[in-house]
Amino acid sequence: PNEFTIKVVNVMLQLKELGKEDPRRVIHSLKVAFAITLVSTFYYLKPLYDSFGSSAMWAVMTVVVVSEFSVGATLGKGLNRGLATFLAGVLGLGSYYMVHSISRGNTTIEPILLGIIIFLATAGATYIRFIPLMKARYDYGLLVFILTFCLVSVSSYRDHEIIDTAQDRVTTILVGGLISVLVNIFLCPVWAGGDLHNLASKNIEKLGNFLEGFGDEYFGTLEAGELNKSLMQGYKSVLNAKQVEDNLVNFARWEPCHGRFRFQYPWQQYQKIGNLSRQCAYRIDALNGFLNNFTKTPKEIKSKIQEPCIKMSMETGKALKQLSISIHKMAPPTSAETHIATSKIYATNLRSMIKTKLWEDTNLFEVVPVVTVASLLLDVVSSTEKLAESI
Amino acid sequence: PNEFTIKVVNVMLQLKELGKEDPRRVIHSLKVAFAITLVSTFYYLKPLYDSFGSSAMWAVMTVVVVSEFSVGATLGKGLNRGLATFLAGVLGLGSYYMVHSISRGNTTIEPILLGIIIFLATAGATYIRFIPLMKARYDYGLLVFILTFCLVSVSSYRDHEIIDTAQDRVTTILVGGLISVLVNIFLCPVWAGGDLHNLASKNIEKLGNFLEGFGDEYFGTLEAGELNKSLMQGYKSVLNAKQVEDNLVNFARWEPCHGRFRFQYPWQQYQKIGNLSRQCAYRIDALNGFLNNFTKTPKEIKSKIQEPCIKMSMETGKALKQLSISIHKMAPPTSAETHIATSKIYATNLRSMIKTKLWEDTNLFEVVPVVTVASLLLDVVSSTEKLAESI
Repeated sequence: PNEFTIKVVNVMLQLKELGKEDPRRVIHSLKVAFAITLVSTFYYLKPLYDSFGSSAMWAVMTVVVVSEFSVGATLGKGLNRGLATFLAGVLGLGSYYMVHSISRGNTTIEPILLGIIIFLATAGATYIRFIPLMKARYDYGLLVFILTFCLVSVSSYRDHEIIDTAQDRVTTILVGGLISVLVNIFLCPVWAGGDLHNLASKNIEKLGNFLEGFGDEYFGTLEAGELNKSLMQGYKSVLNAKQVEDNLVNFARWEPCHGRFRFQYPWQQYQKIGNLSRQCAYRIDALNGFLNNFTKTPKEIKSKIQEPCIKMSMETGKALKQLSISIHKMAPPTSAETHIATSKIYATNLRSMIKTKLWEDTNLFEVVPVVTVASLLLDVVSSTEKLAESI
Repeated sequence: PNEFTIKVVNVMLQLKELGKEDPRRVIHSLKVAFAITLVSTFYYLKPLYDSFGSSAMWAVMTVVVVSEFSVGATLGKGLNRGLATFLAGVLGLGSYYMVHSISRGNTTIEPILLGIIIFLATAGATYIRFIPLMKARYDYGLLVFILTFCLVSVSSYRDHEIIDTAQDRVTTILVGGLISVLVNIFLCPVWAGGDLHNLASKNIEKLGNFLEGFGDEYFGTLEAGELNKSLMQGYKSVLNAKQVEDNLVNFARWEPCHGRFRFQYPWQQYQKIGNLSRQCAYRIDALNGFLNNFTKTPKEIKSKIQEPCIKMSMETGKALKQLSISIHKMAPPTSAETHIATSKIYATNLRSMIKTKLWEDTNLFEVVPVVTVASLLLDVVSSTEKLAESI
């Protein structure tokens, strides 16, 4: 029982941590619970129950399934569900009546024909789900389509008041979808677009953090540098941010205009920025590799090019941070440009230093990496700059 | 209409391409269609329909929702759904009876109490879904739990034959789940574990392809190198493979022993291999950056270190390819070791060449990158080797 207590306490701590990390999670849980409790009044209030009956079940189901974290995701799922249900309902009924008129009440042929239609429709829709574009945006819609199509065309075989049932279901699904969308939008909404915006700016800031710390760390000029280490390693989350970004872009497409984002905002732009910052992060990961075996390098060699290197990485870091701020504020990146210019000057210094002297009889391996990757970084920074300008 | 025709033809071509890329997609679609057609016989056959009635709907729903591409995903969803339905059903009934005995038939208190319970349960379950471990493995189960709990406890308020209904539903869901799992396992199964295995080995092969081509490409020794270019760029898919990998690992956990994989196979090992090959890919991406501005470098400078560089990247490439093969065959990577040894010899050569001569008055920037990144690669290769040994 003692081990069990420890486990429970651990889970509790984890839950608390999750709430601290992003308080919107707590709010989201309460929102979902509120929407579901609201929709369950369909059962409690007699007049509502009398008009919908057990179809009210579909409203509850819709709210549970559609309630997602961000507005975009909820709207996307809701629209997918609504459209797919409607379309599949119409097609399902149509195919049933077609089969019914062909078979003319023959109870052997009818199920066989229905079976064939269901087989073909399901196989087709399942296959279409493999198309990448479909998978990204309409996967849930296709699933609901298969589901509803099968239910309608199959149950029409037994239930001859099918039209009434179908109507009730569509109405309740619409009501359920509407409730969850409204609750999601009007109670502390979480906009996927805003999250995407913050993610792009934060990721660039993380890269900047690394570069600001890198010079001092590599050349060992700052002793009490322990504080920065976790900050510097923040760039690692940038490496694998692609999936999160793509999801957010897909969600953001569904969102109406809000805050500073107008309708049909160019969300793909963020994907481009993301790709560029990831390219930058790959270089930084390579740089990070040199931090760990820095003991091998004799200090005298390092010190020769210490100054321009530290300055360069510091300035590039500052430039990235300024970029991050200007993305965040949607302002043109003017102060970032001056930092980039300064770091370019240091890069030229460094190049000429390397050309002229120094390397009479030293081992190249220890100094070179900083130079190469820093020059790479300059490229990436300038291209990020171009993108930031286009916002 | 002409534009429309073009669009339709394009979609058709895309569909054909998808089938060619992975014929299992076509088979999967047919499998799902088969399972659904099978389960819809519940409606057509009178004896079956008489025993289940309209609860047969739940069997169809389960099959549609649970049928996933790989065995692991289907089993995971099926088990999640089954367990969650059962648990939520029991708890939902329990809470209803508790409320019923407290309120003693008071029709005002009863819905209020039920509402409070539903609110708390939903908020709790929704919040738990944010725990990363839960999200990865039991997300669907928690969703179904919320759904079933609400439906049962809410509809028990109106429907007093609730126990019968619940029993029917659980039975049909079990039957539906069983049908889709059986069809998925016994008709051309797609094992997530096998896919994961192939992905790990293929990704390493792609890295090898790049390195084999890199030397010739960079030094321009091979003119008709166009053929290799698309092969070389294959490494780019490795950069963002993390999400796919994590999903496959989650699915593979659900799978029983099959083929060469025993039960409780150490799937996390593949994640480690994946992380290492991604680290390697980041370095390769940096190398790739140098391919594009290689026109700047004068040929004389390059040619000085041409030979060891080409050999080194060739040997490292071969080593990676051998590693990929030995992962694929689950054999110890003996021949990879010899390649690694050879490339290490070239690396030592290169190091001493750089130390002694050459750099009197040349610009460092053009030759250095190859050396640095190649030495980095050596590190990564040797650590991948360690991992490959542990299989």
